[in-house]
Amino acid sequence: MCELLGMSANVPTDIRFSFAGLARRGGETGPHADGWGICFYEGRTTRGFLEPEPSSSSQLARLLRDMPIKSCIVLGHVRRANRGRVSLANTHPFSRELWGRRWTFAHNGQLKGVKRLPLSAFTPIGTTDSEHAFCWMLGRLQVRFGTLPRPAILDSAVAELCAELHGLGVFNMLMSDSRTLYAHCGKRLCYLTRRAPFGKATLIDEDWTIDFARETSASDVVTVIATQPLTRDERWTNLERGDVLTLREGSVRLLRDGHAQPPVT
Amino acid sequence: MCELLGMSANVPTDIRFSFAGLARRGGETGPHADGWGICFYEGRTTRGFLEPEPSSSSQLARLLRDMPIKSCIVLGHVRRANRGRVSLANTHPFSRELWGRRWTFAHNGQLKGVKRLPLSAFTPIGTTDSEHAFCWMLGRLQVRFGTLPRPAILDSAVAELCAELHGLGVFNMLMSDSRTLYAHCGKRLCYLTRRAPFGKATLIDEDWTIDFARETSASDVVTVIATQPLTRDERWTNLERGDVLTLREGSVRLLRDGHAQPPVT
Repeated sequence: MCELLGMSANVPTDIRFSFAGLARRGGETGPHADGWGICFYEGRTTRGFLEPEPSSSSQLARLLRDMPIKSCIVLGHVRRANRGRVSLANTHPFSRELWGRRWTFAHNGQLKGVKRLPLSAFTPIGTTDSEHAFCWMLGRLQVRFGTLPRPAILDSAVAELCAELHGLGVFNMLMSDSRTLYAHCGKRLCYLTRRAPFGKATLIDEDWTIDFARETSASDVVTVIATQPLTRDERWTNLERGDVLTLREGSVRLLRDGHAQPPVT
Repeated sequence: MCELLGMSANVPTDIRFSFAGLARRGGETGPHADGWGICFYEGRTTRGFLEPEPSSSSQLARLLRDMPIKSCIVLGHVRRANRGRVSLANTHPFSRELWGRRWTFAHNGQLKGVKRLPLSAFTPIGTTDSEHAFCWMLGRLQVRFGTLPRPAILDSAVAELCAELHGLGVFNMLMSDSRTLYAHCGKRLCYLTRRAPFGKATLIDEDWTIDFARETSASDVVTVIATQPLTRDERWTNLERGDVLTLREGSVRLLRDGHAQPPVT
């Protein structure tokens, strides 16, 4: 298995605190030592960093702890290989351009028979189930919509594709088109939204406490989503299997059983 | 204008020496302070690093000088913006997946009317002439060949597309499909091949001398290509306008006026 980290915010936000917790799980406090990656959206594209090595001992991951890269959408992943050998080509997040935007995708879980799903314009570079699922999703979207649809239309289409993949096994997933961060809970995924009044938070994996009241403005809204809670003193909300979240500018919308739920934040 | 750096080698080779020279030109010994990028091939994909900031003062570029990432194909670029504002989306090298391989592309020069060339499956994310040219090339290749052609077939097709773009202005270009490094000289491009017996070399932009005899094995073949020579004490070969080079495992093949020339290395 692997662990996921996502962030959606209404102002460019520095994710170093959460990333520090995740990076420790890549070979130190967790067994996910087979690669790591993180993508920071900047407009329609991303700064991406990937290595097929443990994040806990990576020089590059250490540099990212020192560089305050601010972004409104971030996707991160630490990998413990099951299908597909340890290599750069098998390291998440995967990325592709569609409709003039960079799409990114990270997954944990296994999907039985996913490689029988037919592909069209997007072809995997590596050998993971995950990249095949991503290429299949993008190909289906490209065939269905000639150009980028409105967010509400795309949300439903993404939720339908997630439901198909959910039927094949465990599909904990984060994906973004540079506007929305999509999350699907196959088995385990939780989130929390930080907004005023801000408080303090302490990492589970490292002795680091941050006072968000000192780091933020009153109007900031930041949602963090992860496979397991990253902080010990905040309330994380667990998703149910099959839930789809759409995150835009920090705001969360839950689709459960194919239906939109009342706003939760 | 901008400056390009490419490398092709028959064994995974560390390019830190050449990159150090190029990085200084990104805002210190040269005016190319509007962004920089470098892609290291690893199999069919790349480790890519891009920033819309000067390489000469970048923390990330400094880290890359300390990290011996070895690769058989490398593309690098420092940018001085002319068309397209300073942004991550306009930073070279650009990359796309085609036929299950990551293609990368870096360019210096201007191409008049290039945005009138029709696109198909690949769409620019940024606003540069360069990315439009890249998307046009990949689209043409995808339509012409259903799957990845043999290198010799692809070489001719790439050379034809280069000749079309050469007609629009200045097209100094590096591109790779993960097997071959392609170079086109629009105005200025030079290269050198290092092989046994190896000697010493000194950077032009920095007081750094390296003794390749101590860093290499007798069978190593490494070709470096750049807009301007990077070392002061080696013999660089200038290309002529319209020349296309194909570089595979360090070996250089020159196509001049559409015809292959006798091997030069």
